[in-house]
Amino acid sequence: MSNPIRVAVTGAAGQIAYSILFRIASGQLFGKDRPVHLNLLEIPPAMNAVAGVAMELEDCAFPTLAGITLTDQAEVAFDGINWALLIGSRPRGPGMERADLIKINGPIFVGQGKALNRSASDVRIMVVGNPCNSNCLIAMNNSDVPNDRFSAMMRLDQNRAKALLATKSNNPVTAISNLAVWGNHSNKQYPDFENARINGRPVTEVITDLPWLQTTFVTTVQERGADIIKARGLSSAASAANAALDHVTSLFQPTADKDWISAAICSNGAYGADAGLICGLPVRTRADGTQEIVEGLTLSPWAQGQFNTVLDELRAEREVVKDLLK
Amino acid sequence: MSNPIRVAVTGAAGQIAYSILFRIASGQLFGKDRPVHLNLLEIPPAMNAVAGVAMELEDCAFPTLAGITLTDQAEVAFDGINWALLIGSRPRGPGMERADLIKINGPIFVGQGKALNRSASDVRIMVVGNPCNSNCLIAMNNSDVPNDRFSAMMRLDQNRAKALLATKSNNPVTAISNLAVWGNHSNKQYPDFENARINGRPVTEVITDLPWLQTTFVTTVQERGADIIKARGLSSAASAANAALDHVTSLFQPTADKDWISAAICSNGAYGADAGLICGLPVRTRADGTQEIVEGLTLSPWAQGQFNTVLDELRAEREVVKDLLK
Repeated sequence: MSNPIRVAVTGAAGQIAYSILFRIASGQLFGKDRPVHLNLLEIPPAMNAVAGVAMELEDCAFPTLAGITLTDQAEVAFDGINWALLIGSRPRGPGMERADLIKINGPIFVGQGKALNRSASDVRIMVVGNPCNSNCLIAMNNSDVPNDRFSAMMRLDQNRAKALLATKSNNPVTAISNLAVWGNHSNKQYPDFENARINGRPVTEVITDLPWLQTTFVTTVQERGADIIKARGLSSAASAANAALDHVTSLFQPTADKDWISAAICSNGAYGADAGLICGLPVRTRADGTQEIVEGLTLSPWAQGQFNTVLDELRAEREVVKDLLK
Repeated sequence: MSNPIRVAVTGAAGQIAYSILFRIASGQLFGKDRPVHLNLLEIPPAMNAVAGVAMELEDCAFPTLAGITLTDQAEVAFDGINWALLIGSRPRGPGMERADLIKINGPIFVGQGKALNRSASDVRIMVVGNPCNSNCLIAMNNSDVPNDRFSAMMRLDQNRAKALLATKSNNPVTAISNLAVWGNHSNKQYPDFENARINGRPVTEVITDLPWLQTTFVTTVQERGADIIKARGLSSAASAANAALDHVTSLFQPTADKDWISAAICSNGAYGADAGLICGLPVRTRADGTQEIVEGLTLSPWAQGQFNTVLDELRAEREVVKDLLK
């Protein structure tokens, strides 16, 4: 087998990590012929728990698991890595506003951004820990790693939107393509049904109930996380982990012809999204594994209004953390 | 794509199910070209939670997930199924003895055994919920499904034993073969190092420290579950789920030449294991997908003593539930 790919996972004792680590170690992400070395980062009080996770990973006897490093130091976790999955973040406490959450998480991502300078030259960084767009912005601005290696996760939103359109139109999920979720991974995100397609046809031709699309569809996707918490009593973990696997796969596999995926990457100014923002956009992966923003899509005035709202939210979040951006 | 394979999972809102359902739905068990329909069985108080799990499964937009049925009725859950993963069981409460646990779980598996009569003609049943050997025995004895379709999980023990021998001998886990765990999935199980091999050589030739093998190795495997609980604060879930996937795969894929796997199946009387007991034994899957017990292996008097101890435990468990066996 080839040299191991080195993958750092933060928040490694948490629920999302518990759902993703075994799938990565099993070879489901990078293939059955590619050994993986996992660097698991946690805060000191969780080191005992993450040791238990490592024991369970060993107990799987995965042929593809080359080794595990446990650490509470980002510099150790990120040393020589090819992928960083930044899953860990401080959760929102009772009565905490989104701005408070952003402030409390900021310093973590300042430190992790600097520590990422120790990673391999081909490193890619994906931020899952919320608020993921702004956490990613902070890490990117505090790192010497090129901006185009950073991304934040909109894929759970994309998958939710596809599943909902598939159910509504009585099609398999594979029938849904070109689904972009614009802006922020927050309840102001805009899941774009105008440019999405069902079996190659515009969604609005197949689902002709525009009020349903503009209200039920959009708000169901926006509020899905809260609905899951209501049902399970716990936040989405396995579906978030699954979306993270999809996201990573979509960043190293060229995108299918004429399709695109949803990812929050560093904006180049397209569509009025300020250059340098980590913004959910339609994205394609080229044959060489780099990404491009799909430009030239049309948004109706109504859709542009949705995007403007969430862009304003991203700008406000940036203002909250401006002292942490170099 | 072909017709969906129908898989029932009991205890579907529990932690092991949460770790296995997404891997099954992703196509990792039955392949990317085989759609899966999941029948999720839970007790009434957990139906809200399992609805949340189903929402998360939908949110993954898995191309291979053909549908989900939620029910609190075993007759509905097992209707027309090809595989039953009986994961749910009542956990051991404070001060509860193993015999109490067996008694409290017995009636559940009586009902499930009868309900399995509604399954497809090719159904296979795997019991994971503990005490899995005796729960499987009860289900088998209360069902018209042929005995050779029933099995209970020894695979987590096998995987743990392989990982430990690999670490001790500084080999990859793929170097370890022919690892049988005899008897009961309990802390009296006997992980058989005498017949196991490392790179084709007897383990005892590679690891010459016999006291380590007879004591540290055996007790570490036997007590691993308790050690995980100590570290994580929670019992093994992801590694148990992974072992269940390995077990199922090993029952439909022919076993590699000269190797065997560990599974608890209905004994034919080999090795002095009473015919009709669900006993951990060395097992091979034939080219036609049926199983055979690997006979003719030699156990040293010491190993035979280990096996006799755990056989006595299985017999005692059978005595506890004898009124539930037809």
